[in-house]
Amino acid sequence: MADIIPVDDPADPRLSDFTDLTDVELRRRREPAEGLFVAEGEKVIRRAAQAGYPMRSMLLSEKWLPVMRDVLDQVRAPAYVMSPEAAEQVTGYHVHRGALASMGRTPLPEPGALLATARRVVIMEAVNDHTNIGAVFRSAAALGMDGVLLSPSCADPLYRRSVKVSMGAVFSVPYARLGTWPGGLKPVREAGFRLLAFTPDEDAVPLDDIGAHRLPRVALLLGAEGDGLSARAMRAADDRVRIPMAHGVDSLNVGAAAAVAFYAATRT
Amino acid sequence: MADIIPVDDPADPRLSDFTDLTDVELRRRREPAEGLFVAEGEKVIRRAAQAGYPMRSMLLSEKWLPVMRDVLDQVRAPAYVMSPEAAEQVTGYHVHRGALASMGRTPLPEPGALLATARRVVIMEAVNDHTNIGAVFRSAAALGMDGVLLSPSCADPLYRRSVKVSMGAVFSVPYARLGTWPGGLKPVREAGFRLLAFTPDEDAVPLDDIGAHRLPRVALLLGAEGDGLSARAMRAADDRVRIPMAHGVDSLNVGAAAAVAFYAATRT
Ligand SMILES: C[S@@+](CC[C@H](N)C(=O)[O-])C[C@H]1O[C@@H](n2cnc3c(N)ncnc32)[C@H](O)[C@@H]1O
Ligand SMILES: C[S@@+](CC[C@H](N)C(=O)[O-])C[C@H]1O[C@@H](n2cnc3c(N)ncnc32)[C@H](O)[C@@H]1O
Repeated sequence: MADIIPVDDPADPRLSDFTDLTDVELRRRREPAEGLFVAEGEKVIRRAAQAGYPMRSMLLSEKWLPVMRDVLDQVRAPAYVMSPEAAEQVTGYHVHRGALASMGRTPLPEPGALLATARRVVIMEAVNDHTNIGAVFRSAAALGMDGVLLSPSCADPLYRRSVKVSMGAVFSVPYARLGTWPGGLKPVREAGFRLLAFTPDEDAVPLDDIGAHRLPRVALLLGAEGDGLSARAMRAADDRVRIPMAHGVDSLNVGAAAAVAFYAATRT
Repeated sequence: MADIIPVDDPADPRLSDFTDLTDVELRRRREPAEGLFVAEGEKVIRRAAQAGYPMRSMLLSEKWLPVMRDVLDQVRAPAYVMSPEAAEQVTGYHVHRGALASMGRTPLPEPGALLATARRVVIMEAVNDHTNIGAVFRSAAALGMDGVLLSPSCADPLYRRSVKVSMGAVFSVPYARLGTWPGGLKPVREAGFRLLAFTPDEDAVPLDDIGAHRLPRVALLLGAEGDGLSARAMRAADDRVRIPMAHGVDSLNVGAAAAVAFYAATRT
């Protein structure tokens, strides 16, 4: 059972996991270094706890105690209870969703372990926008992808915004980080995956012609908003694949492209 | 040619189109009432001007004058030049993209006019999130949908955030507002469209079984994040259609569902 601890002073050092949450640059450095991440809101906190992440502490207002009762009953962690106004001074914003939890990170699987059992994976290159990362995870979970591989420069799926946009799918879809890029793609191909590089380029193969759902193992490579996939990543792939677009349009958002790609690769 | 007018005072009444841009509630009321919308950043401003929206005025910093030269040459509107610091006092935030334009709204087409020439349309019910509205427009443009119909309570596609997320697609995809709901769906069906209501419900028909791309005219109905489509809207449709999902997942984000639906309805 959690220890319920009323706190008044926003400068209380026990709240340090929750300070300056609006400073993306700071939090992006601090959270992995300190081995924590922040889950926000009832649903997401519950899903993080169920997924087995250890809770370090909670910060919530009094009226959220009954709502979070089941979670509080199950964890051994301090739950700091504060007025919404004082909490805002700690975090830097008004916490609409009423409750925050600081969770401990657990070690990521090795790519090889993830690939051993997977049949459909998505690989993102340099996707550094937390919203896009979260969106891709949500669709990956919904459409039954088996795992996500991240190039070394992709943003953190456990950053608060990614977690929220993913609706907690970052807790349920296994993911791993590739140590080198694009070198890390080689073991993926060696594990029997066909590597499809998704690009809006006109000279790529139309998605329908690939028959992705018939391939025994397939890895879908997606790039970031501005640059798309690098030439090196495309060369390392087996095919360059495009989702046909109307004339004069640059590209789909990576989240939209991902949804279409997952749908095409998982239909039965 | 635009009049280049240096301004120092953030309280200058000529800047009133650009005040308090971060106050969503205020702007959401003011902009339609005053017949304006705000385009942000070089690309989006250029697209709005090319789409024929009349420019009321611009607010930009000195260093953006050469970048926007071609646009400034073509419009007859005052361009207020301010330091980034002073501009921030007007707008309430730091304008990363350097230039803002206030554009005049033009009358929306009647739904009937839009339906007369369209073959594939999307209809949104009560989607009140500007990011989701923008995302759906971007995918609609990219995947070649012919138009968008909005239920009366959908958010404004010309709100700054929608415009930005859509990458300017709100200027290129024709859209109209239905006057009544779900009554406004009747003329859509009478125009020969098959109405497909998209829902995650398990008992809906799987998307692949519908063969949406073979239907001569099809309207894809999508709902909002929390509530989804109303029972009334679903009853007014011809079919309830689902994108098959993995076990235990609630739903796709509406933007992701839209991308899959558009892909399935427009492939040839
Ligand atoms: C916004 S796009 C990147 C655009 C970039 N200018 C380019 O040319 O690749 C982000 C990612 O979404 C995927 N994507 C977007 N539109 C696509 C399309 N029509 N076909 C295939 N992939 C697409 C690609 O993986 C791309 O790297
Ligand atoms: C986030 S969902 C809404 C979820 C809502 N709880 C419901 O049950 O409809 C937003 C919209 O995306 C569409 N959508 C999401 N997932 C879908 C799926 N698996 N199949 C069909 N449509 C889906 C629907 O139009 C839905 O109204």
